[in-house]
Amino acid sequence: MADAVLFEFLHTEMVAELWAHDPDPGPGGQNMNLSVLESMGFRVGQALGERLPREMLAFREELDVLKFLCKDLWLAAFQKQMDSLRTNHQGTYVLQDNSFPLLLPMAAGLQYLEEAPKFLAFTCGLLRGALCTLGIESVVTASVAALPGCKFQVVIQNS
Amino acid sequence: MADAVLFEFLHTEMVAELWAHDPDPGPGGQNMNLSVLESMGFRVGQALGERLPREMLAFREELDVLKFLCKDLWLAAFQKQMDSLRTNHQGTYVLQDNSFPLLLPMAAGLQYLEEAPKFLAFTCGLLRGALCTLGIESVVTASVAALPGCKFQVVIQNS
Repeated sequence: MADAVLFEFLHTEMVAELWAHDPDPGPGGQNMNLSVLESMGFRVGQALGERLPREMLAFREELDVLKFLCKDLWLAAFQKQMDSLRTNHQGTYVLQDNSFPLLLPMAAGLQYLEEAPKFLAFTCGLLRGALCTLGIESVVTASVAALPGCKFQVVIQNS
Repeated sequence: MADAVLFEFLHTEMVAELWAHDPDPGPGGQNMNLSVLESMGFRVGQALGERLPREMLAFREELDVLKFLCKDLWLAAFQKQMDSLRTNHQGTYVLQDNSFPLLLPMAAGLQYLEEAPKFLAFTCGLLRGALCTLGIESVVTASVAALPGCKFQVVIQNS
């Protein structure tokens, strides 16, 4: 039945609810809503990270952790794998999903591009939270060139 | 991995977010938050209902629809079946779950009973929304006697 979509439906409703009371909240309100979504994603990512098989991740290299997220975390959350992972080998990774499930309900017109950040903020937090639990501090941003594809850029923060 | 829990984690964060800005919003604020959760559940339930196999439900009796929710909807959403279903054969149904997954993270002390409604409102909406899509108008309420068990009361509204 519909189990895999329950998370996606709830995510859609959550975005709708945040913007329901003020559909055009201005840059300040928009950023506050995006920040709320990112924080929720972060905490869910942390919680998911705590359930990952720890022995699989012990002593792995940073790149292996990113590969793990692209494969296992993405499968768990979105029933598919990330389409590509690139790195500059200096702590920056670009994760590309050519058909990101949370963007699929949006029509593929250019006029919807500006709506896309709403549907990416939670997942940026999800990646940052999972990385945090695995001991890696990062900054995660997302960009869209052609719907429903998107890129997540992960920049590792060296302490 | 952790796919089945993603919905539960997100639900927990959503409840936390609604109460984050005012942990003690008073009866009015409390009811507004519960109503927001119930509405989100309703729309998710509607969307889930639209994905149900229609031919399975055509021309069924009301009781069969309720049985379907107790078995298939519950399995899809919570990876378990409802523990019991009772009816007075006059349009009132009591669905009992002896170990409701969204209540499991709460400790089983009596002192947490008053927190329980926060974690039941979304699911009341979910049931009401799924029933609505299947052509049945209802009022759904929930009650807790002993955590983590709970009862959902469905009262069919005859038009």
